[in-house]
This record gives sequence, C-alpha cells and structure tokens, in this order.
Amino acid sequence: MGPHPAVAAIRLAVRRVLHDLLTDLSRTTDEAREPSRHERTPSPLVLVACSGGADSMGLASALAFEAPKLGIRAGGITVDHGLQPGSDLRAEEVVLRLRELGLDPAESIAVTVGREGGPEAAARDARYAALDAAAERHGAAAVLLGHTRDDQAETVLLGLARGSGIRSLSGMAAVSGAGGRYRRPFLHLDRQTARKACMVQALPVWDDPHNADPAYTRSRLRHEGLPALEKALGKGVVEALARTAQLSRDDADALDAWAGQAEASVRDATGLLECAKLYALPPAVRRRILRRAAIEAGAPAGSLFARHIEEVDRLITGWRGQGAINLPGKVVAQRQGGRLVIRQG
Amino acid sequence: MGPHPAVAAIRLAVRRVLHDLLTDLSRTTDEAREPSRHERTPSPLVLVACSGGADSMGLASALAFEAPKLGIRAGGITVDHGLQPGSDLRAEEVVLRLRELGLDPAESIAVTVGREGGPEAAARDARYAALDAAAERHGAAAVLLGHTRDDQAETVLLGLARGSGIRSLSGMAAVSGAGGRYRRPFLHLDRQTARKACMVQALPVWDDPHNADPAYTRSRLRHEGLPALEKALGKGVVEALARTAQLSRDDADALDAWAGQAEASVRDATGLLECAKLYALPPAVRRRILRRAAIEAGAPAGSLFARHIEEVDRLITGWRGQGAINLPGKVVAQRQGGRLVIRQG
Repeated sequence: MGPHPAVAAIRLAVRRVLHDLLTDLSRTTDEAREPSRHERTPSPLVLVACSGGADSMGLASALAFEAPKLGIRAGGITVDHGLQPGSDLRAEEVVLRLRELGLDPAESIAVTVGREGGPEAAARDARYAALDAAAERHGAAAVLLGHTRDDQAETVLLGLARGSGIRSLSGMAAVSGAGGRYRRPFLHLDRQTARKACMVQALPVWDDPHNADPAYTRSRLRHEGLPALEKALGKGVVEALARTAQLSRDDADALDAWAGQAEASVRDATGLLECAKLYALPPAVRRRILRRAAIEAGAPAGSLFARHIEEVDRLITGWRGQGAINLPGKVVAQRQGGRLVIRQG
Repeated sequence: MGPHPAVAAIRLAVRRVLHDLLTDLSRTTDEAREPSRHERTPSPLVLVACSGGADSMGLASALAFEAPKLGIRAGGITVDHGLQPGSDLRAEEVVLRLRELGLDPAESIAVTVGREGGPEAAARDARYAALDAAAERHGAAAVLLGHTRDDQAETVLLGLARGSGIRSLSGMAAVSGAGGRYRRPFLHLDRQTARKACMVQALPVWDDPHNADPAYTRSRLRHEGLPALEKALGKGVVEALARTAQLSRDDADALDAWAGQAEASVRDATGLLECAKLYALPPAVRRRILRRAAIEAGAPAGSLFARHIEEVDRLITGWRGQGAINLPGKVVAQRQGGRLVIRQG
C-alpha cells in the first residue's frame, strides 16, 4: 500500500523540484570545470524554510523523505521574528521537529524586524536576509519555501489592488532569488493538501496567530475577501488566479524583453530619447521604456506608479507644450526639441 | 452658478467622447471624398442605449445637453428583453422619458432572448443585435453605452475567474464594435456619480431587479464579492481594477501584434510551423501563435482554454514523442518531422 494521496502529492512536488535542481547543478558544474569529472563532488545541501505551520512542515517532511534517495543532504531553518513573547521557545520547538525528521543542519535564527514598508514587508525582508545568510554559511544549493497555490492566489489579488499592471499580477515565481536559490515546490498544490499530509503523518503543526489577525491585509484577504469571491464566482477562483499569475509573468517577461531591445533604437547619438520614435512604438512598450528611464534616472521603483508614467507618456502622445513633470526621487521629465529628457533635478 | 459637480462630471465625460467622435468622423470624411468640402454634411446622429437605470439615464441626459452644442443630433433606444411581465410597458415609459429629454428618435425595440451561453450572455447578444440594427436603420454615427468604472471592475473580476490570461482582464474598451460604433463615456466615472447626477436633475430611474438577483454572477459579485474585496484591500480596489483593465488591454494588444509579426517568420515554405523556430520565441509570443493557429484550423475561440495551448506547447518545449493532441472543434495538433501540424481531423 502506497502513502496517503496527500503525502504522495507533496512528495511528488518536492521530487520534481529536486530533479530540476540537480539538472541545473550539473549544468553549472559542467560549465565551471571541463574535463575533471572524476573528482568527487560533495553531495549538495537543500534547506527548507520552516515556520512550523502546516505548509512548511509538510514541505520539510517531504524533503526529508525525498532528498536521501537523490543523494541530497536536507537541512532546515526556522526564523524567529521575535514579534510575540515566547517566539524563541517556539522556534526551538520547530528545530526539534526538524531534527526528528532527520534534517541536519536544523537551526533557528533570530532576526530583528524593522518598520520599513509596513509590518508584513519588514518581517519578509528580515526573514529573507536571514535565509540568504544561512544558505551562504552552509553552502546550500537551494532553499525551499512552502508557498501554496492559495498563497499565490492571495498574492495575485494583492497585486491587483495596486493596479500597477501585469507584473504585479504575476505573483511569486517557482524559482527566484540570486542564482535561482529559492524554489517553491507547492506553488501548484492547495493548502488543504499540505495540511492533510501533516495530519496523516501525525506531524504537529502550529497556526501562526498572525495568519488570522484581521490587522493584516493578507489575513483579511484569506479569511474574508477570497471566500466571498469564491462564493460569487465559483470554486475555481484560486486556480484561475494562480494560472493568471503564470500567464501574466510570461507576458510581462516578453514585454520587458521587447522594451529592452527597443530602448536602444529610440535613443539618439547622445543617448537622449527621441519623441517621434517613441510615438511609433506600441503604448505598452513605450511606457515600459519610460519607466526604465525614470528608474535609471533615480526614481525609486516602488514609488513610481502607473499614473506617473501616464503623465510622462502624454509628453509624447498629447504634446501641447506642457511643463516639466515631477517624479518621485526628485526626478524630472521634460520634452526639449523633440527629445525627452529625464534626469534628477 | 454652474451645475452640480456630478452633473458637470457626466457632461464633461460625454463632451469628450463627442469631440473624439467628431474628430474621427472628419478624418473618415476627408479620406472618403477629397475636394468637395462645400457640400453640406447632414448633422451626425448619436444614439444612447438606455435601460432606464441611473447610469444610462444620466448618460441620456448628458447627451441631450451636449449634443446640440456640437451640431449633433441625439436619439435614444431602449431594448425590451421581454424577461419580466410588463417589460413592454416599462420600455414605453423609458421612451417617454427619453422624449422628455428631447431625444429624437426615441424608441423601444423588443427582442427575443435565446439561451446560448447562459442567461446573461444571451440577453447581451440579443441587445447588441438590436442596437446594431437600430444604428444601421437610423444611420447613427455612434451608440453610447452607460458602463461605469464599477461595471469595468466587475468585468475584470469576471475575466480573472476565467484564468485565461491578460486579454480576459482587459474588460470593456472605451471604443468598440464595427467602425468604433460603441462608445463608453462613463468608463472612468463611478456609478455613484451617475446616480447622483440623476437625483439632482430629478430624473426618475429604475432599478432592474436582475441587478440584485443573486442568481446572476455579476449581481453576486456586485453585492457581495466586490464589497468583501474592498473591505480586505481598501477602497481603491475598483479604481485599481479599472486601471488593470487599461494596462492589460495595451499589453495584450502589443503581444498580439508581436505574435502576428512573428508568425510569418516561423512558417516554412509550405506554411507549416517550424518547431525549432517556435522554441526560440518567448513563451508568451509562442503560445499566442499556437492559439491563432488552432483557431485558424477551426477550433472555436471560446472553447480553447489556456490548458489546451499549454499541452500543444509541450510538443515544442517538452518533446518526448507525444501523440496527437485533441483540441475543441475536432482540431488535432501533432508534431511531424520538426514541424507542428494543426488541422481539423
């Protein structure tokens, strides 16, 4: 008798990602050093980032099961955000569970969460900094993250609420970070499957009270927004949102590539943007070039909204002698003699 | 003292659209007949499609006010869908109100709503067929529709639920139909403004009971889904969704144009698609070419989903000797000697 379907599903998801990883690693190794294939490569280490919740605990159990079969060492990291009293003890408990699963190294890292960008963004920044450092220190080939299809759907809706275009609809990537360090095996799996897999494996899991705290946007979305949307639109909404993420990501990549190529062709000999040539481009490509130019001039990407770019675009498409346009980061855009000048003022 | 801000807002929205229309008309006229500009052109007719609800009644009032100032004749059409007892009497009442506003012609058209595609789609098809016919019969230059920013937000969410990519996120166009017949002046205006404008002008409006009937997806979205989303994500959601529509439309247009151009370059001398050349394209462009090819071969666009195209795409990106892939409309896709053959089987 095979494992429970939920356990089989999480293991398959992890196995696929580990296979991809080994393919990527052998490619890099081949490139790095040519003929001396006889040297013994140390077996690669893969870490799992584990909060102790059902998603990442399920992920840890699947990694512990699959890694040895592929000659991979499995370790686990839990980050203590220090946001609740006793969080250090809880982190130690998670470490114990990771050790019980056979993960080695298994450690907890305490971080200090700042305030920049709001509580959720600050906690995320601190967490990834700690995971990056741990991966470097242990020489890990990858860090697995337990984000599920439900997390992806929430991320798409959060992006939708920004209204800043398809890049913000593209959610989380299956592979991200420097050198493809972060991998998300559960991105096509629903949260319920991870939870079920923990239950049937008798793995104790911990429900982070933050996940149910209505002070957090994501929590409100999870417990009220998304269920109401499912009630109105049907049960397929989460899957549709996740599919939208993938399609939007591919579309945004293609358009960014186009804008990158087109940019060189719309600059004059001195490097200034020529308005007539910009005008001839499709709006989607032109606006991406304008956005890149503004960021290059020093405008912070996070403060540069669609309405800013629209206003700069009107210097091209609706020219009637407008004055200079102020952008975030003290960047100024103005039209001068058929050229668009964007620079820090 | 000027008009109430809500009335000023709806009039400005209509004035802008009428200006655009006149620009378009003068361009077409210039192209059609060259020097004989002295002939007197009859003043163009613009119709408003009016259900009697606040949005379209506000639109009718603004058209009645603005059209004469621009030498445009204003008329109105109401469509009697025959879905409720007494709908014919109600339609006659709307016609009376349109006449009172000074619209001429003002008429009601009875249609028979079929069943194809569900009740909402069937009613929409019947309505547009009637409006098309009325526009032809009266020689109207345009038909104005009362869709607001709120309708646009709902349309984006309905598209999101399909999960079929950014084209379905692009909502309704400000200008659509054959020759740009349909125009939506209120697409950037919120529903509340239209309602307020009717109130302060003492225009009686009619609330279609369908709009509050939870049997309709759009109605559930309007009364439950969207408010819950606003509660979770903040009041800016409707505006963000409307902005997403515009950005997605521009992006989808640019990618369609790219796919159109790239298609010629990936066909061999006999017109077959070359797999190696397809492989070299960005996924977003390649999948659009595959979709176009499937539709050209006879697959009905409405039944062709993202998952179909993904499967065909794997003949290019994940070739391991798969068999033929069945698509809707009895279309079959298969790989033969480095070529992709898509045809009705």
